Amino acid sequence: MKIIIVGASGTMGKHLTSVFEKEHEVIKAASGTGDVQVDITSPESIENMYKQAGAFDALICTAGPTYVGPWKKMTDKEFRKGVDGKMMGQINLVLIGQHYINPKGSFSLITGALTHDPQLNFANASAANGAVEAFVRAAAIELENGIRINAVSPTVIENSPHYFPFFPGDIPVTMQQLEYGFRKAVFGANTGQVIKPY
Amino acid sequence: MKIIIVGASGTMGKHLTSVFEKEHEVIKAASGTGDVQVDITSPESIENMYKQAGAFDALICTAGPTYVGPWKKMTDKEFRKGVDGKMMGQINLVLIGQHYINPKGSFSLITGALTHDPQLNFANASAANGAVEAFVRAAAIELENGIRINAVSPTVIENSPHYFPFFPGDIPVTMQQLEYGFRKAVFGANTGQVIKPY
Repeated sequence: MKIIIVGASGTMGKHLTSVFEKEHEVIKAASGTGDVQVDITSPESIENMYKQAGAFDALICTAGPTYVGPWKKMTDKEFRKGVDGKMMGQINLVLIGQHYINPKGSFSLITGALTHDPQLNFANASAANGAVEAFVRAAAIELENGIRINAVSPTVIENSPHYFPFFPGDIPVTMQQLEYGFRKAVFGANTGQVIKPY
Repeated sequence: MKIIIVGASGTMGKHLTSVFEKEHEVIKAASGTGDVQVDITSPESIENMYKQAGAFDALICTAGPTYVGPWKKMTDKEFRKGVDGKMMGQINLVLIGQHYINPKGSFSLITGALTHDPQLNFANASAANGAVEAFVRAAAIELENGIRINAVSPTVIENSPHYFPFFPGDIPVTMQQLEYGFRKAVFGANTGQVIKPY
């Protein structure tokens, strides 16, 4: 199976790459490094990534920039970081990628528990997650040729301890749990699901 | 109670205005008509609306432009209609309005069943709804001084029969049910809820 991993240079992307490249052909896509460079905030850059990568079977995205900061000073400007990043970045990966993906292929996006379990300072990520999860359900009934789409929604990640103070009481998701979430999304048969790997 | 109704010239806004102005002071805000003009896709226009309206107790929004059209031709460009309209339009009404609203005031936004029950051609509205609903939950834990926020989420509206063919089998929400949803949001005590008035 040929798998494109967007965000391959990040904490989650590195782990998924190291695991999946033992069994499959992995195309590492990231903003600065990797086999293919991509800026997910740019539809043109996404289109170029797909042209370079060629036809593929699975797209995994672990990239999702959002704004983290105090609510009272949050304006449209700060909010657009997550809108253009985690939200439209991932939505455009699908809207454009549908024209390059093989039949029976799959899109596996990243969201997070903030959709239903908000934390102070993270309203932007909550909104982006909520948008992506609703989009996943909508895309699942639109995609043809057996193409599937799911989201993997972890809590805070064990390898990101700097985030722990923002998520009091959240039991961190291990990298193996995250990996299993994406295994379910990529190698399972479901579509339109939000997979909680915990 | 002083209530600003954004989208006052639309199908839902007209009904809510006619009902609530019997009991309260209603400021009608809309894009072309009304007591105050507002273009919710512009943060500057929203700021001007609040400056003209003055301090208020409740903000109701029934305005939410989104793109409706075939999935395969949907690109970033079409998708931005709902991003800048129903999503960021409503989010900016809150981010800006928090600085003008009275203590114990409330924001009541509009979403819809498409968040969890998608229909063909409506992926843009699904994503916008999902974003707004997750934002409502996040904003509810950020807002201070007893200020509340909720979303009202109807199915297709009885007064919009041109939408019926797109929502096969959906039992239309009556204008009275919709009104009751907003009554619960504005005059109830809950916050961070998605109210389904059916």
